Formats: sequence, structure tokens, C-alpha cells
Amino acid sequence: MLVYGRNVAKEVLKNNKKVYKIIIREDFDDKSIISLIEKGDYNIESLSKKEFSKFDKYSHQGIILDIEDFKYAELEDFIYEDDAKVVILDHLEDTHNLGAIIRTCEAAGISGIIIPKDRSVSVNSTVMKTSAGALENVRIAMVTNLSQTVDKLKKEGFWVVGTAMENSTDYREIDYSGKIALVIGNEGSGMSKSMFNACDFIAKIPMYGKINSLNASVAAGIMIYEVMRSKK
Amino acid sequence: MLVYGRNVAKEVLKNNKKVYKIIIREDFDDKSIISLIEKGDYNIESLSKKEFSKFDKYSHQGIILDIEDFKYAELEDFIYEDDAKVVILDHLEDTHNLGAIIRTCEAAGISGIIIPKDRSVSVNSTVMKTSAGALENVRIAMVTNLSQTVDKLKKEGFWVVGTAMENSTDYREIDYSGKIALVIGNEGSGMSKSMFNACDFIAKIPMYGKINSLNASVAAGIMIYEVMRSKK
Repeated sequence: MLVYGRNVAKEVLKNNKKVYKIIIREDFDDKSIISLIEKGDYNIESLSKKEFSKFDKYSHQGIILDIEDFKYAELEDFIYEDDAKVVILDHLEDTHNLGAIIRTCEAAGISGIIIPKDRSVSVNSTVMKTSAGALENVRIAMVTNLSQTVDKLKKEGFWVVGTAMENSTDYREIDYSGKIALVIGNEGSGMSKSMFNACDFIAKIPMYGKINSLNASVAAGIMIYEVMRSKK
Repeated sequence: MLVYGRNVAKEVLKNNKKVYKIIIREDFDDKSIISLIEKGDYNIESLSKKEFSKFDKYSHQGIILDIEDFKYAELEDFIYEDDAKVVILDHLEDTHNLGAIIRTCEAAGISGIIIPKDRSVSVNSTVMKTSAGALENVRIAMVTNLSQTVDKLKKEGFWVVGTAMENSTDYREIDYSGKIALVIGNEGSGMSKSMFNACDFIAKIPMYGKINSLNASVAAGIMIYEVMRSKK
């Protein structure tokens, strides 16, 4: 997987991730990154400005790393924790939202994230970039069937909390103690019907305007911090 | 100001905003928008696919509206409200963050938003697009001097609450009743020193990971909903 730009490069080099190749533009002069590169034994390719320009559609800042693909976790890595709090992303589409939600989960101390294999964003270089390094410190499991996964979570004692605008309870009035699986729906269409039906509670973030639509990662952030409130 | 795409077009046409011109691609066929256009008396320009392609760097979906520039509010329009809650954006840089924060303020029922004239994003077509129509329903004042504005707010009885990671109080432990001005800092550098010094309280969103950086609009969303908690 190719990743672009200084912040990601710094993060990868500091964390001793497997780097197949470092591609730099001849005029690259970020001293802190160059010093990180010099500390390791890397395969480096230096390109002229002209050769490097083929990557100009990416926001590369003169440096590109070819690194190992993201390693997904197994569900079993995190669902047995005491009072585990997990986040299920029900067919999210936007890589920037996924990146922002990964950052929030990392900061809030979420046990793990679950995404479905089909019709969903997966962890690519954009996600890696927008998650600003947080990706290295969260566990993400990719599952083939969300409904079966939710059944499994319920058997493990999880309460499943979804979010929607109708027929729902103020998000501040739900008890988030114990094991909680928080479901975040698709940006446009919200939760899928099967997930909606699987929820033990449906939480609503109250809105007082006329338009009343929160950005998906903002809504997720408000919910995630509300769930974690019970833990501390 | 040119604005691009179906969602914005729909929003503008529904809200009877001043439209100087509607530019559509010859194959544009969104029935609900066409019906909105037919209800009004608009100056329409239909372009061939080839002519329209000059706008392809924008995400236009075949329709562009030339509309009146955004009308900023005056500070005095909203700071005299009982228990007014205002959001001060201290030199935010990213238009997508501004758009997302505007959506959050609209949904949460914030009284008004204050942005500085210099070194800050202002309301352009990207903001209009990412704010998903919320822009029409929020008041945004643009001021020349943030420090003087904060002095004025304090004279009006506002408590000023900033956000930072150090020397600060858990955001859940602050009393947000009465008039509150919430300061959101720059994406990279946080609040400016003068704003930091002007704050009555500094709130911290607790973080439990290693990277611990929230997206600016996510952090703003968590804070804004916490401030509004006191109101309902």
C-alpha cells in the first residue's frame, strides 16, 4: 500500500512498520524525516521532480512510502474485554469519515471497530492519512456478515445501541454501562434495516434547527464520547 | 458566488435566495430540481457537455448556481439573547471543518458563530456545500479583532470557555449555564495566546490513547453538544 505525505511518513517510520520502499523527490528536505530514514536500513528511490510529478494527484509533499497493508484484527481480539465498548460502522462510504472516526475511537479508548467486508469503506491510504497515525493503535475487525456478528456480540453480553432520528430515546438517557456495541449508520441512508431491528436501544441526538443534519463523523464523535462517559 | 451540485441547488431554490443565474448541463435531468426551477423566474444558461467541462474541477453534478454572496450577521444580532451560546472560531483554516461546524451549530441551536476577518476561513462555496444547507439558518459574524470582541462579550456577561490539552478542566465538569462563548482553536496550533489568556475556563476532552488527536470538527461537536446540555 502506498501512503503519501510527511505526517504519515513520520508516523510509519517511528513505529517500525514494515516499509518496502521509500520514494522521495530529489528536493525533499524535511530534516526530522531524513534523520528517521537514516536510522533504518531502507530501500530508497530518489526521483527527479519530473519523474515524481506522476504522483501529483496525491497530496504527497515529496515523500511516498510503500508499506505493508493494514492488518485487520480478529473480533476475538477485543470482544472479551470487561465492559468492552465497540463501534460498528454499518456501511460507511466516506474515507474521510472513517479516518476521523478511527481518530475518535483511538482517543476515546474504544476496544475495537467492526466494519463489514462489502459495500463499505476499508482501510486504504486515504484512511491512513486522515486518521493521523491513530490507525496504528486501534483494532479493526472486518466481518463478512454484520447481522451474524451482532448475534455473536449479544451472546457475549453486549447491548446494541443504534442511532436514528425517529422512535428513539435521547442519547443522554441511555445506560451505557457494561458491554456496548454502538452502531453508526451510513452517511446518507443511516442504519440498514437489519441492524436497526437488531438494536436494543435507538439513541437520538436532539436537534433544534431546521436542517438538522450532523456530519457522520461529528455525530459518531458525540455518541462515542457519551458511551465512554460511563467508563470513567 | 458560484455554488455547485444538486444538494446546494435544491437548498438555494427552496429558500428563495437571490439567484443571478442557473447554469445547467444539457443532459441535466434531476426532476425535483427542474420542477423547482420551473416554479421561479430564473436566468438560465444551458451548456453543452463540452462547454460545461470547464467546471469539471468542481463537483458540480451538472448544475451550478450564481447566487448572492453570503450575508454575515452583526454581533448585536445574537449576543443579547438570554443565555446566548456562541461559538468563536479562532483562526480555523479548513473549509470542510467550517462547514461541519456550521452544521453542528445549526443542529444544536447555537445563537451565533464568530469568525475573525484575517487568517481564517470565510464562507465560500465549499463551506456552503459542506454545511449542507445549514448556512441559511445560522448567524455568522465576521469581526476585525477577536480580542476586542471577547472583551465586549465579557461586558455582556459571557463566560469564555476555551479548549486545550494542558492545565485544563475535564469538559464535563464546567458549568455552562448562562451566557457562554466557546472558543475553538486552529486545527494545528490550537487557540491563539491572546484567546487562551482571555478564557475564564479551559476545557479538556479526556483522551486515553497514544495519538490522541481528534478531528477539529469532531472536537467542536463534542464541546458544542456539552455546552447545549445545560440549556435543555
